[in-house]
Order: sequence, then C-alpha cells, then structure tokens
Amino acid sequence: MSQVQEKMARLLEAVRAEKPLVHQITNYVTVNDCANITLAVGASPVMADCQAEVADITASASALVLNIGTLNERTSAAMIKAGQAANAVGIPVVLDPVGAGASALRTATAKTLLQEVKIAVLRGNISEIKCLAGSGVGAQGVDATVADLNPAQEQDTIALAVELARKEQAVVAITGAIDTISDGQRCITLANGHPMLSQVTGTGCMTTALVAACCGVGIDNFWGAATGIAIMGLAGETAYAAAGMQGTGSFHVALIDAVSRLNGAEIAKGVRYREISL
Amino acid sequence: MSQVQEKMARLLEAVRAEKPLVHQITNYVTVNDCANITLAVGASPVMADCQAEVADITASASALVLNIGTLNERTSAAMIKAGQAANAVGIPVVLDPVGAGASALRTATAKTLLQEVKIAVLRGNISEIKCLAGSGVGAQGVDATVADLNPAQEQDTIALAVELARKEQAVVAITGAIDTISDGQRCITLANGHPMLSQVTGTGCMTTALVAACCGVGIDNFWGAATGIAIMGLAGETAYAAAGMQGTGSFHVALIDAVSRLNGAEIAKGVRYREISL
Amino acid sequence: MSQVQEKMARLLEAVRAEKPLVHQITNYVTVNDCANITLAVGASPVMADCQAEVADITASASALVLNIGTLNERTSAAMIKAGQAANAVGIPVVLDPVGAGASALRTATAKTLLQEVKIAVLRGNISEIKCLAGSGVGAQGVDATVADLNPAQEQDTIALAVELARKEQAVVAITGAIDTISDGQRCITLANGHPMLSQVTGTGCMTTALVAACCGVGIDNFWGAATGIAIMGLAGETAYAAAGMQGTGSFHVALIDAVSRLNGAEIAKGVRYREISL
Repeated sequence: MSQVQEKMARLLEAVRAEKPLVHQITNYVTVNDCANITLAVGASPVMADCQAEVADITASASALVLNIGTLNERTSAAMIKAGQAANAVGIPVVLDPVGAGASALRTATAKTLLQEVKIAVLRGNISEIKCLAGSGVGAQGVDATVADLNPAQEQDTIALAVELARKEQAVVAITGAIDTISDGQRCITLANGHPMLSQVTGTGCMTTALVAACCGVGIDNFWGAATGIAIMGLAGETAYAAAGMQGTGSFHVALIDAVSRLNGAEIAKGVRYREISL
Repeated sequence: MSQVQEKMARLLEAVRAEKPLVHQITNYVTVNDCANITLAVGASPVMADCQAEVADITASASALVLNIGTLNERTSAAMIKAGQAANAVGIPVVLDPVGAGASALRTATAKTLLQEVKIAVLRGNISEIKCLAGSGVGAQGVDATVADLNPAQEQDTIALAVELARKEQAVVAITGAIDTISDGQRCITLANGHPMLSQVTGTGCMTTALVAACCGVGIDNFWGAATGIAIMGLAGETAYAAAGMQGTGSFHVALIDAVSRLNGAEIAKGVRYREISL
Repeated sequence: MSQVQEKMARLLEAVRAEKPLVHQITNYVTVNDCANITLAVGASPVMADCQAEVADITASASALVLNIGTLNERTSAAMIKAGQAANAVGIPVVLDPVGAGASALRTATAKTLLQEVKIAVLRGNISEIKCLAGSGVGAQGVDATVADLNPAQEQDTIALAVELARKEQAVVAITGAIDTISDGQRCITLANGHPMLSQVTGTGCMTTALVAACCGVGIDNFWGAATGIAIMGLAGETAYAAAGMQGTGSFHVALIDAVSRLNGAEIAKGVRYREISL
C-alpha cells in the first residue's frame, strides 16, 4: 500500500468511526441522493436552509456543503449566513458551483460565496471552474461544455486547479474523466470512474457530499477532497460491473450500494492516481 | 415498419443524437425522476426556478417544461417569465397542469399559463384536461377521478382532445390506460403501458419530461408528444416484465432502466397505436 | 391470530380498499419516498404547500401530515393553515417534528404546531419527543442522540409516551429499536425493524406517511399509528432479507417493494408486540 492509498484508506475509516454531521444547503433535485450517499459513506446528513436556523445547525456540524443547483434569493442568503457561521466555528465549507456560467445569477452567486465565505474546497466540473477562474467559454445547463472536455487539455487543467487554488487559498477539485485536485502546494489526479456516472443526475452533487464527509473528520482538506472523489470513482466502477448492463436506474441504486459497502482496504487497492510535482 | 412507427423510431434516435437541453420548472416531489428520465432518453435536463435566471436558462434550452405539481407564488411567476422567454426564442413549451381541478389555485394557475404563454403541448390526465376545458366534475388530489375513467368514454376523450387542441392551438395529450393525442388536425391513440405505472408517483411528470425531450429536437410537436408518451408506455411494459413481481420500488427503478435501454427499432416494434380520422 | 394482529390486518386491508387521500406538507429531502410509500400501502398522496391552496387540498383529504424536516417561514405558515382546515373538517393530523431540539426554530415551530393545531398523532424519535416534553438533552442533526438510546430506558420511554399523550391529548409514537405508542389510556410496544433502516434517509418520514394512511381510514388513531409503524418495521425485515447484503441503495428500493406487497395476513403473522398495562 502506497502512502497515498494508506491516507485514503484511513480517511474513509475515520469517517465510518466518527460519523461527522454534514450540514447541506443544496438543490431539491438531488438532495435525497446526497443524504443517502452521506449515510452510505458513514457520515450523518442534515439538510436545513431556513435563515432562522442555519447558524444553529451549522454550529453542531462538522462540515458544511453549499450547492447552488437550484438557488434562489432565500437560500442564497441562507448559504452566506451558514457559511459565515461555519467559518466562525472553524469547520470546512465545501462549495459546489452547479451551473456557474449557465446564467449570470449562478456565476454571480458562486463568486459572492467565494468572497463572503472562506471556502475550504471548491468542487466543480471543468466549465464551472473555468467560469470562476474567469477563463470560461460559457456553459449550457449544468453539465460540462463539450469544448472544455478535450483530453489534451490535461496540463491546462492542472495549471488551472493550481492557480485557482493559490488565488482562492482553497482546495480546488475539477472532476471529469480525470479528476484534478490541488491546494496550490500539492496536486493529484485520479483516474477512477465510469462514463455512466454522467447519465445519472447528481453524481457531481453526491461527490461534493462525499468530499464534505471526508473533510468533516478534520484531518486534511486536500486529502479529504481526493478521498471523497476517489470513493465516487470507485463506486462508479463497482456499480457499472454490478448493474450497468441493466440500465441507468439500476446503476444509480448500485452506486449507493457500492459506497455503503466500500472499505478502506478496497479504496487503497482500487484507486488510480498520479501525484503531480509542482 | 409503418410510417407511424418509423416516425417514432427516428424521433427517439434524433433525441439520442442531438441531446436537447430541457429546462424544467417542476415540482419537488418527482424532480429527481424527471431529471433522470430526461438523461435516460438521451436528452439533458436543467432545473432552475429563480425568476432572476429563468430567462437565461431558457435561452440556451431546446424545450421548456412547466409543471405545477407543487406550485407557489414564487415559482408560478418564474413559470410565466420562462414561458415568455421560450416563446421569444421559439422553443416548445410543454405544460403539465398537475392537479388542475383539485384546488382553485391550480385551476387558475394552469389557465393563466395557457393565457400568458403560447403552449406547444398540454399533457394531463383526463380530470385535469376536463377541468381546463371547462367540463370537469372536480378532482381529488392529483390522480384522475374514478368517474372520469369510464372506458366507454373513448370517443368523448377523442372529441375533448381535438376540440381543446383547436381552441388552444396546441397539441393536447390526455394520458391514461389509452392515451389520446391531437393537434386539432391529426389524432392518434396509444395503447401501451401497465397499471403499475399509477402506483409510482411521477410517471405523469416523467412522461411530460419525455414529451419535452422529443419536442426539443424540433421536428413536430404532435409526433414529439406521441413519441414521448409511447416511450413511457413501452417502458412500463418492459419494467413490469423485468421487475413488477418484486414490487413498486423495483418497478420504479426498472422504468428508468427501460427508457435508458430503449432504441428506435424497439419503439417501432412495440408501439400499439390507432390513427383517428377527423 | 390475536386481537391485536387482527386489528392491524384489518386496518391494512381497509387502507387498500378505501385508498385514503393523504395531504402531506413535508420536506424536500424525502418527499418522493413519502409519496411512493403512501402509494405502496394503498393510499393516495397529494403534496401541496402553498398557503393559497392548502385549505382546498386538505378539505378533500382523509388525513394530513405536517413534517418540519426542511421547514421555512412560508411552509410553516401553510402547515398551520392546513392543520386548522383539517381540524375544521375533522380529519386526523399527524405531526413529525423532524429535528426538534436541533435548532431553536425547529423546537419552537413544533411547539407552535402543537398549540395551534389539534394533533391526532405525534411521531418522532426519542430525542425529538423528549425535546417536546421538555426533558431533552439537546439534539445534533435529525437523528436520535446516542445518549437517548440506552435500551435500559424502556420503562422511561413508556412513561414519557403515556404522559405526553395525556398532556397533549394525542397519540404519541416514539420510534426506535423498540417503538412505543400510547394515547394515554392504552400503550403498546413494537419490536420489528432492522438497524439498516437508520442508514437510509427518510425512514422516519415514511413511517409518518404510513401512520397517516392508516389513520386516514378513520377507525382509531392509536391502532392507526401502531399499524403504520408495524408495517415499516416488517418491511425493514423483509427488505433486509431480500437486499440488505447488496447495500443501502438496494435495501431502500426493497423497502418500498415490501410495503407494496405486504398483505393483512403477513402483518398479522409477523408483528412482534407487547401490550403494556397502564
């Protein structure tokens, strides 16, 4: 077992042992899956988006997710309030800028959250992250734009993650066929996953929930992000093998199954990674 | 292969090839299923209901769904705004008047949407459509009223669909054991499906999402509506054969599976239809 | 078949025969599961939370669920309005005080609902019920606090249920490994279920929906509560046997399956109960 694999295995085992409470202000499309994947990995979810209670809820949590998938004025304000409460108590805030670039509101809201809240981990697809770094070509909907998905751009993606991580002083995680994670000092790419993950809604949101669970044990947000993303990638492979031929509904169910059954030894054995020297 | 079957087969293949973006303002009960069935048929869903962004989102979409299943003041206003933006850019708007007749608010909101927005396809159950045509006996909840489900009324249902289609200058699709679709000039009935579809919430909403995906390729809204409805009917049959005996949870999963695996040749082979001369 | 078993068997059969309409104002995390379990048990769900329509919807329903899982100002006001409409027409109101104790807002809202609305059944976990009885130690998130789960406290739990039932003049149902149900005159404990039920989000919410369906046939709210809870416990056992080894995703699906296939004879045979003399 390499050091990287050992770190990830230990992190998953810490989540299962400590059951961190993860407060999630998220969208109503994928919220059930986010709660169930949080439970499957061994953490405990609590969804609450009313301004009058978010500070209370955050105060007893170990991590906070802010996901703008179905943002509105009411919940955006609650996100800022919760984010600042999380900063005050020192728990990690994970931002998922769903659809940044697809509307002016989403871009502006994601930027406001980055300004008003100290973000520990920013996780998005390549189009969303490019948008927030000021280099996007414009998005359609909430999926990555095809033009952004050229595999030859791997070095560019690494540079983007590292630079944005330094600028925002946060872990930046760009997920896709290859995932790129950097905190500005360290960088790793991950190569697990399966294309069918893009045929189920919310696999990005669920990845964000897993990242928050793994950061919630308070070890290291860079490794927390990498471990959460590795878990989803491995679960995608396991789910495809178990149920992919049946269709996307069965694959969706098998994805939760796979996370619920994954243990540290399996993550250590299965993860495919490359450490990037900066 | 008949002309009808060929049209449906080509339409499904066009959806899979073009992956139209379908903007959906819908209810929070079945929204996850609507997103997943949109992906399963080969299109791309984007759910966004904030007035400040709906025009942006609609502008990049190929079809718009307005579903009043859990309407409120905020989202009803967003529906009008999105609908008018869709009309401005010329993409089809599919209205699902969930529960029209079950409350004064739902009836009034559905009628307002028909007035303020040019609707391309109106899809509902017999009670909802009767309500909007001014001939309803009153609904209880969001399912069709038993008194409205007399099979002897098949000719009446055809007349209702044709007349309302002419009045609203829209495709009207009345779904049930027999589905009736008309644009005022053409009319077709479909006989696929399975009774277990009524034991899973949201199969109507999912049908509406499929209709929008099929209209989103821009070929013909009458055939788009018929094809979306045929896909759900066939998927219900396939899902029942695969998992119906296990119960409604497995049937629900198998329904998404079936849509994700359906191809043009299968839809052509399986669809049971009757063209009605007007 | 004992009298208790016969009562539960008849109640389930009454639900399947009468298909009561259950109006649910609930959270957006588990709402799809609540609707599907309501259908699975044979009842009909309608979700509606807009103040402008809740009285209309409640007026045609046979039971009302108020679930504060993702409360906000808008929906809390709708709950009061719907609750008072339910009281006016005489249908049972089932309150699920999700997360009472986890924030000041939740505690206050649950108490307000108990004051402003005549509640027929109050169903919660031990931490939520202790909070509302004024004896809680404080909750973290929406799950029961570990300190509250000491099995040696069984007599205390019975005393708590009985006393609160008398004070609130309602059926109080405290669910957990052992479920305790009392209306102040009668008390029963149930011992069905499986630990995996706590690894799927919303099994508490779904239990509340089942309770409302069973109360909706208008026989007896004490037996309605007990039967709804027994159905979920038995379904948990059946689902674990069918799919538990596959993981929590498959268990979740199998849970809906089990409810949809349960019949009166099976509930009579499988329920494990103890009647408590007061």
